[in-house]
Amino acid sequence: MSLAADTSVRGSGSATSLDLGPARALSCRECGHEVPLAAEFACPQCFGPLEVAYDFGRVTRESIEAGPKSIWRYRELLPVPARVTSVPNTEPGLTRLIKADRLGAELGLRNLWVKDDTGNPTHSFKDRVVAVALAAARELGFTVLCCPSTGNLANAVAAAAARAGWDSVVLIPSSLEQAKVLTTAVYGGTLLAVDGNYDDVNRLATELAAEHEDWAFVNVNVRPYYAEGSKTLGFEVAEQLGWRLPEQVVVPVASGSQLTKVDKGFTELGRLGLVEATPYKVFGAQATGCSPVSTAYAEGTDVVRPVKPDTIARSLAIGNPADGPYVLDAVRRTGGAVADVSDAEVVEGIRLLARTEGVFAETAGGVTIATTRKLVESGQLDPDAETVLLITGDGLKTLDAVSGQVGPTATVPSTSKAVREALAAQGL
Amino acid sequence: MSLAADTSVRGSGSATSLDLGPARALSCRECGHEVPLAAEFACPQCFGPLEVAYDFGRVTRESIEAGPKSIWRYRELLPVPARVTSVPNTEPGLTRLIKADRLGAELGLRNLWVKDDTGNPTHSFKDRVVAVALAAARELGFTVLCCPSTGNLANAVAAAAARAGWDSVVLIPSSLEQAKVLTTAVYGGTLLAVDGNYDDVNRLATELAAEHEDWAFVNVNVRPYYAEGSKTLGFEVAEQLGWRLPEQVVVPVASGSQLTKVDKGFTELGRLGLVEATPYKVFGAQATGCSPVSTAYAEGTDVVRPVKPDTIARSLAIGNPADGPYVLDAVRRTGGAVADVSDAEVVEGIRLLARTEGVFAETAGGVTIATTRKLVESGQLDPDAETVLLITGDGLKTLDAVSGQVGPTATVPSTSKAVREALAAQGL
Repeated sequence: MSLAADTSVRGSGSATSLDLGPARALSCRECGHEVPLAAEFACPQCFGPLEVAYDFGRVTRESIEAGPKSIWRYRELLPVPARVTSVPNTEPGLTRLIKADRLGAELGLRNLWVKDDTGNPTHSFKDRVVAVALAAARELGFTVLCCPSTGNLANAVAAAAARAGWDSVVLIPSSLEQAKVLTTAVYGGTLLAVDGNYDDVNRLATELAAEHEDWAFVNVNVRPYYAEGSKTLGFEVAEQLGWRLPEQVVVPVASGSQLTKVDKGFTELGRLGLVEATPYKVFGAQATGCSPVSTAYAEGTDVVRPVKPDTIARSLAIGNPADGPYVLDAVRRTGGAVADVSDAEVVEGIRLLARTEGVFAETAGGVTIATTRKLVESGQLDPDAETVLLITGDGLKTLDAVSGQVGPTATVPSTSKAVREALAAQGL
Repeated sequence: MSLAADTSVRGSGSATSLDLGPARALSCRECGHEVPLAAEFACPQCFGPLEVAYDFGRVTRESIEAGPKSIWRYRELLPVPARVTSVPNTEPGLTRLIKADRLGAELGLRNLWVKDDTGNPTHSFKDRVVAVALAAARELGFTVLCCPSTGNLANAVAAAAARAGWDSVVLIPSSLEQAKVLTTAVYGGTLLAVDGNYDDVNRLATELAAEHEDWAFVNVNVRPYYAEGSKTLGFEVAEQLGWRLPEQVVVPVASGSQLTKVDKGFTELGRLGLVEATPYKVFGAQATGCSPVSTAYAEGTDVVRPVKPDTIARSLAIGNPADGPYVLDAVRRTGGAVADVSDAEVVEGIRLLARTEGVFAETAGGVTIATTRKLVESGQLDPDAETVLLITGDGLKTLDAVSGQVGPTATVPSTSKAVREALAAQGL
């Protein structure tokens, strides 16, 4: 991918026909330099990361509420064409926000909500970012949807491409669990298993992105558009609270993009007058086995030192998080914090959420729950403030985490007597 | 469970305080005899199955659309209190109805929709029926939520009980796959693994239901209420089509309850003036390895002869389907049909749906897709009529069905050259 200020767009698209809705330009998060909308991701001036800048039109609660029951109700706030719903794509979003009184009682939070994003088409928040990436990629002239991934993203890309009728190219480490291979391969795209680790796969993907002008690697060459999809988590939380911002939100941190985009979404809603711009605090959650942002937060530094991940929370295991510094900015600006928890605490977090609210989260969800507990105990989360926890992936995809930890209460012969005795032993 | 005309309600409830919304009585589907609302499931006159009868109030599209984004928007059409959303329960429903043009092109159906019920809290339609059962059971004075199950129902019951803060008792065959054990056990209720088959487990559950007056076995002693939850699939399809009935709907058949309740839901909407009562045809889908209803349909008889199931579509493997005769009634009354498909066709159906629409269904979904193909080829489904297929469970729970069938396109060394060659071999 060239870093020159290339204003052209890829493939068959052209600058004149480009319709990315309210998106105005790509803006450098470091130096503020702006470049025209294109398939770029690094600033030609300073190599800083580019993000989407907007000229929003008039957006009202009513126009949003009258829209589709998916993230496309927020299309006027995303880098997608107004006609986005008229072309095949997935329909993620508008997942449950549930009042979590039983979990709150356990954690010591008196006004707690859980955003359950396992209801998305492939059961993780990745469906949101991939749907936005696909819509933008189509406008930018791409024709193949691609990614390097170790799981959730692979599922989401392969599924979205299938629905759109696009070819897909997904690169995974060949050591990936069989379940994750199956749940990607079933969608029928090209799935390359590479004898290497995720870093190897990522490097190969970046090479391929530079070589194939029709290939959109969602988290590489169209990353600025892709990342905007996470804003919809913030939009939905606010709308589902009755057009109000929560006082505290706890977000798991992998690359850190999601946390920064939830913050961006809250800010945009306030600026547009869709919610009152009340103060909120953003908190980040990491697994101790991959906690570079938490470490930097604790040390009071802006420098996120890369680590070699070693945690069961594989979907968060990014040792060199691209948005780490921006996470620190958002957390410090809002008065939040970042903390981390052990793998044992992660498993306990998964089980606590399941047994109190009936939501079975993947390991990342366990990280969020366990970190929340820690932040309450340390006094950093206010027990009386309205708090939202983001549960962004599904326990069905990380069964290994609870295998050996949970199982039948008892195994009994097929007789009434045996069953009665087993129940009596449970006090039933 | 006594078959006497017992008008009392269980546990702490009492007849005077009983609030089951518009439900008026339980009515025998065979002889029409009515008994007061209670925890009964068989007619005291003829032993026929009881179902809920209603006195509906005035229900409008506007009142429904202003309701929650879940099945509870239809609470005025269900045997639940008006205040149902003020007590802890799950929030299933309002899952995606997607236009399936790519699948339609493959199947030869020019106006096709897929109802994707994998977005529910535990990723199957069972969350709908369990949520209604829980709400009714609470009114009827029960305090423990129970079931015999081999999978989806176990997940749904354990999760709903956890969210409500109820104890749960789930009985499963001890031979159940580890994944299904984990995805039930994680919610923390009592899970008894019984050394026997599903018939043994079911028998033990029926005994326990008679012995414990506070235990609601959702599919046994509160079955009439539970079954009504499936109406919401029909309600949602009609609302999501813009308050219109489809011309054809294809429904997988296990006990047959779902099919009859979708039909009941369509009929109620027409009677209430919520949709125009246009004609529709209901089609049933079975796996050949458990196809007693399809066999009876083909033979032109009303008698459903029990079979011993032998199919990979385990969630449909009910050899003696309680609602089989009512399925035949609904199908014949509306001009539909029942057909069945081989296990190989089931797997191809799963893969076809995944690669055309990005929806990964469990084996029951493969049954629906493959049966639809067969019914188009036989001329029983009209290729020009608006058609809805119900996909009621998630492929993540039946990975074995596609294991060995799908996998990586290629496994390659971690070099640019190897990746390029593998892609070139795919024409990429």
